[in-house]
Amino acid sequence: MFRNLKPVGRILYGRNSFDQLGDILGELRIEQDSFVLFLVDKYFEGKDFLKRIPSHPQDILKMIDTIDEPKTKTVDEIVAEIKGLNKGLPVSVVGIGGGTVMDYAKAIRLMFTNEGSSVQYQGLDFIKNKGVHCTVIPTISGTGAEVSMTTVLTGPVKKLGIKGNFTAADQLVLDPELITTVPEPIRFYTAMDCYIHNIEALNGYRKSVMGDSLGTESLRIFRDIYLGSDSRSPENEEKLMIASYLGGLSLTYSEVGACHAISYGLATVTNIHHGVGNCVVFNQLEEFYPEAVKEFREMMRINNIDIPHGVTAGCTPDEIDQMIDVSLTLIFMWQHVCGPDWEKIITREKLRGLLMKM
Amino acid sequence: MFRNLKPVGRILYGRNSFDQLGDILGELRIEQDSFVLFLVDKYFEGKDFLKRIPSHPQDILKMIDTIDEPKTKTVDEIVAEIKGLNKGLPVSVVGIGGGTVMDYAKAIRLMFTNEGSSVQYQGLDFIKNKGVHCTVIPTISGTGAEVSMTTVLTGPVKKLGIKGNFTAADQLVLDPELITTVPEPIRFYTAMDCYIHNIEALNGYRKSVMGDSLGTESLRIFRDIYLGSDSRSPENEEKLMIASYLGGLSLTYSEVGACHAISYGLATVTNIHHGVGNCVVFNQLEEFYPEAVKEFREMMRINNIDIPHGVTAGCTPDEIDQMIDVSLTLIFMWQHVCGPDWEKIITREKLRGLLMKM
Repeated sequence: MFRNLKPVGRILYGRNSFDQLGDILGELRIEQDSFVLFLVDKYFEGKDFLKRIPSHPQDILKMIDTIDEPKTKTVDEIVAEIKGLNKGLPVSVVGIGGGTVMDYAKAIRLMFTNEGSSVQYQGLDFIKNKGVHCTVIPTISGTGAEVSMTTVLTGPVKKLGIKGNFTAADQLVLDPELITTVPEPIRFYTAMDCYIHNIEALNGYRKSVMGDSLGTESLRIFRDIYLGSDSRSPENEEKLMIASYLGGLSLTYSEVGACHAISYGLATVTNIHHGVGNCVVFNQLEEFYPEAVKEFREMMRINNIDIPHGVTAGCTPDEIDQMIDVSLTLIFMWQHVCGPDWEKIITREKLRGLLMKM
Repeated sequence: MFRNLKPVGRILYGRNSFDQLGDILGELRIEQDSFVLFLVDKYFEGKDFLKRIPSHPQDILKMIDTIDEPKTKTVDEIVAEIKGLNKGLPVSVVGIGGGTVMDYAKAIRLMFTNEGSSVQYQGLDFIKNKGVHCTVIPTISGTGAEVSMTTVLTGPVKKLGIKGNFTAADQLVLDPELITTVPEPIRFYTAMDCYIHNIEALNGYRKSVMGDSLGTESLRIFRDIYLGSDSRSPENEEKLMIASYLGGLSLTYSEVGACHAISYGLATVTNIHHGVGNCVVFNQLEEFYPEAVKEFREMMRINNIDIPHGVTAGCTPDEIDQMIDVSLTLIFMWQHVCGPDWEKIITREKLRGLLMKM
């Protein structure tokens, strides 16, 4: 059985296409009291960009703190808050920001129409009802959240995505102008999240021509950008946005691998941000991806990036065990990396050895 | 202003995924008398494949002759015939075949909900109402019809696509098994339609990173298939299907060029099939695409393909003039090829010289 994939419904793409957001939302504002829920990355607080958001007086705009990864608790709180206003449901939940903000938008829109807590829906195909309309607008590239069918959430028990037929956004706005102010090294770390996705997708058992093809092209662009002389030229900003889009799309047809499986574990204890965490982990994965780890280091060198070291140095043996426990639950990823006999290869001791080096 | 693109709604992809068509249509059959309109390429007449089509007794299945390109007249006739049955509207119009059959499905589904003749809607954004659900299932690769927002129709006056926000299909089934029986040289000609699309899209003024990127990857796959030793290996059948999908998608973000502009002219008089016509024209376009024409000839050589010669030999001067007239109406294509001053470069004499060589 193949999944009948439902990609993002509509795509507005082009430099300064963000200026058309008002028109797009206007088509959805059919009642006089129709309102939009905007979620905006806190990074934009006090910045002129906020004035460009086409909000109406009845709309709700929430600044989203992105220090932590998206949490089921925050999803539930925001949904309860909006429901408590007795204004009805928003005509669109608009996420403007990085993976965290877009994943919040994608999760919150679902929880308006599915009862209970978002914790109940972590996993595959638990969502039964279509959510309200959702618009995602990336202001940083590499997360893939703009195109993916998954909204990754950290709950009280697990960090796991909500994934299903209703989870992709309805509207995507790809405006390369919006990502030009992203500071380094955040831009690099986030871009590498997608670069690593591609490497993982292309090196494993769960393959398809479509996934390989999208991943190959995404990788080609990454090499163009990060092995070249000016990764921040205007053309490269746009290329990075497209590489992220294609890389994110390729995952729909494939699977992530060793880096994400370990990085999810690392994040549960250290609270390290996803992009940074992936870089820290990937740097130690020569055993799995020898050529790519070399290339990744070359990209770091050219772009003067120095990743954190000693991330696990202060961790107790119990904490390391906890990381290993989480990593070993990600069976699909390990099967993709090592095949059906993955358990013989991915031992606790191997994971411990790798984690201790990070 | 950028177009808010509406891609294909859902994608079922995988070897033998066609077997899930019954389930997909089942979700749409909500009333007891719900019926599906199947349009099937006449190539399958008498073949076992017909038994695999999940049709119910109340469905209508029409075999579509693909000797001619799709015509507005046939679209209007089929719509009138179905409406005359007073069964209501089909829950899906399913096109199973090549570009002709898929374009028929995409046009007919629109004409169920838009008054008058399809002739009135040839062009950009004339369609005002959403059509009925439409499913496209390619059984040959290279047309791009499975993914494009255009349904190309030949009317009494012009050959021109219907294009707009409601024109892409709702459901796509990409099953590489379905294209394994396509005979040569049809398969080659049709594949080259997409190869040429890519060359045209990548060499012109109307460019975008997204269009270039999808086109580049599509080209990479074509080279893999047709410059290699066995273009018909099972892996290459699947690759061809994906190359066609990505190439078709790239056109959404770009434009075709000199080959299509001339080939449309050539087809109005000679009735030559689109894929063959493109190959005949492209073979004479060294002036526009020098490297690619060389590569194209190499692909022909490796795959033992000999294209028709002397196609215009029997044409009268009036007929050649008619071809030139049609070609010169395709302003967007010529602007893409030569820029705003295209009229200085693309003279009647230049086109006449090229056409006489074909």
